[in-house]
Amino acid sequence: MSALEYLGNPPIASDHQPRIVRVAAAQLGPIAKQENREQVVKRLTALLQQAAAERCDLVVYPEMALTTFFPHWEVSDPAELESYYEKAMPEGPVVRLFEEAARLKISFSLGYAELATTPQGPRHFNSSVLVGKDGGIIGKYRKVHLPGHVDIRPQDPFQNLEKLYFEVGDLGFPVFEAFGGKLGMCICNDRRWPETYRLMALKGVELITLGYNTPLFNPDQTQSPEQRRFHNHLCMQAGAYQNSTWVVGVAKAGIEEGVEMMAGTCIIAPTGEIVVQTRTLGDELVVADCNLDACTPGKRGEFDLALNRRPEHYGLLVEAA
Amino acid sequence: MSALEYLGNPPIASDHQPRIVRVAAAQLGPIAKQENREQVVKRLTALLQQAAAERCDLVVYPEMALTTFFPHWEVSDPAELESYYEKAMPEGPVVRLFEEAARLKISFSLGYAELATTPQGPRHFNSSVLVGKDGGIIGKYRKVHLPGHVDIRPQDPFQNLEKLYFEVGDLGFPVFEAFGGKLGMCICNDRRWPETYRLMALKGVELITLGYNTPLFNPDQTQSPEQRRFHNHLCMQAGAYQNSTWVVGVAKAGIEEGVEMMAGTCIIAPTGEIVVQTRTLGDELVVADCNLDACTPGKRGEFDLALNRRPEHYGLLVEAA
Repeated sequence: MSALEYLGNPPIASDHQPRIVRVAAAQLGPIAKQENREQVVKRLTALLQQAAAERCDLVVYPEMALTTFFPHWEVSDPAELESYYEKAMPEGPVVRLFEEAARLKISFSLGYAELATTPQGPRHFNSSVLVGKDGGIIGKYRKVHLPGHVDIRPQDPFQNLEKLYFEVGDLGFPVFEAFGGKLGMCICNDRRWPETYRLMALKGVELITLGYNTPLFNPDQTQSPEQRRFHNHLCMQAGAYQNSTWVVGVAKAGIEEGVEMMAGTCIIAPTGEIVVQTRTLGDELVVADCNLDACTPGKRGEFDLALNRRPEHYGLLVEAA
Repeated sequence: MSALEYLGNPPIASDHQPRIVRVAAAQLGPIAKQENREQVVKRLTALLQQAAAERCDLVVYPEMALTTFFPHWEVSDPAELESYYEKAMPEGPVVRLFEEAARLKISFSLGYAELATTPQGPRHFNSSVLVGKDGGIIGKYRKVHLPGHVDIRPQDPFQNLEKLYFEVGDLGFPVFEAFGGKLGMCICNDRRWPETYRLMALKGVELITLGYNTPLFNPDQTQSPEQRRFHNHLCMQAGAYQNSTWVVGVAKAGIEEGVEMMAGTCIIAPTGEIVVQTRTLGDELVVADCNLDACTPGKRGEFDLALNRRPEHYGLLVEAA
């Protein structure tokens, strides 16, 4: 058994057709607090239809694509806070997005705030789903690397209360069979942690969808906007190259409730090179043909993980602090 | 105990003096097969003296800085092969480099091929040492991520026989107390593996020395020289940023025995930004004042590893293939 077979990738037959997935990265401009699901779904649907017109297979939406990025704010009204979470996926106006995607036979990944009802009580996650061309859910991910803080910081112009509003995800980093390959998802701050990409690469991932809501200025940090833009792409490009996978990074852009967001939506090849990138700070689609077979040389070569990693030296990576 | 204290970094006192290490990255041009230790040590010493004149604290030399990069070649004569390894560090002409460094009160890290005599027989490693201003060895590292192959490939213009000529290092990724901070070492292909930087960051590393011998063209790969230069810096910059550490990447440059080497020697800040970079393909020194305290905001902020990593989800990282 070759290293690649260990990773779950089938051998390439001589009559193999290239596994090309036409991907649309669907950047969103700001979503105002007052904007309701109906209005947002209308915007998502317009991007979906544009992607379908460009014969795309997959549309990638940002993190928490259905509402304003509410962790930027202290939300003291419990009813308002609850209104930001989805109790089912899909429910309400979001059902129409699923129906339209099924009608257009287009797949999508969508980030949202999830309120799960469990026997132990309600649980809150920063989640995403991968939806097939038939409108059925292929897989779900719950964000593992939550940034920010649990305490309100009145002196700051805005907050990042993800550690307050969400639990750490409990699904690990799954990958899913789709488009004849292996797809994975991660969300926003996950992209800064090389563990994220590697865990999916060890399961053979070939394309990662990655939505983010990142402010250009962070009250906790001294970095310039230029440095923060550089870091955004640096992490995704290194993750793509070092794991020989496509990465589709999709931003919230523009000024949302006074907070300037990072933008920089892009599709990154397994070489780490940016193939396409948005140019605006609003709703904008960029499209690339992602050949999943372009992952194979790296996975069989310098990033043959089974051959070249040395897990016997990696013990400290999994020791708890 | 704060997360930073867990990582071994002392709290910053109000009377704290910045911990600035003036570092010289000492790129080497090609070393011919015919060049002997005397000749190479003369070149290393010239760079050392130049660094001392610029009041540097630390000189970083490349991987296997004492000989030609012999893993590029099938060496069928056992005596020739053995001649490339050091049986002690220092021995022969290399003693004079240590003596000169002690005289000049300058520290250095040096890569070399190590032949260790053990009760179980001879062992071969691709190693580096960190040497203090008194000429004493502070620490040693043996390369963990060996690239290349064990089989001779007659059709290729050159080989990479590191997996044939060396064992995988057995010292893990240690860090050492020096300059009031924590220093670590890694070698060449180690830099492409995010595990390398992370393992040292979990021990609080603030500056990593990293020598490399990398051909611009790799017979096993389809990448262009431009892509390979991009990957070289991408990995080191991501490693620096994601672990909030200085990285000093030092190349062999120029055309060595017909093989064009990558060059691109640079000093990278904990922001991931390249501070200085060589401009030539020969012996060349570039210098930067590396403030170890510049690591602290990242280590206490977004890359507070104890606070923000989720090792409970990382189990797969250490499972053997």
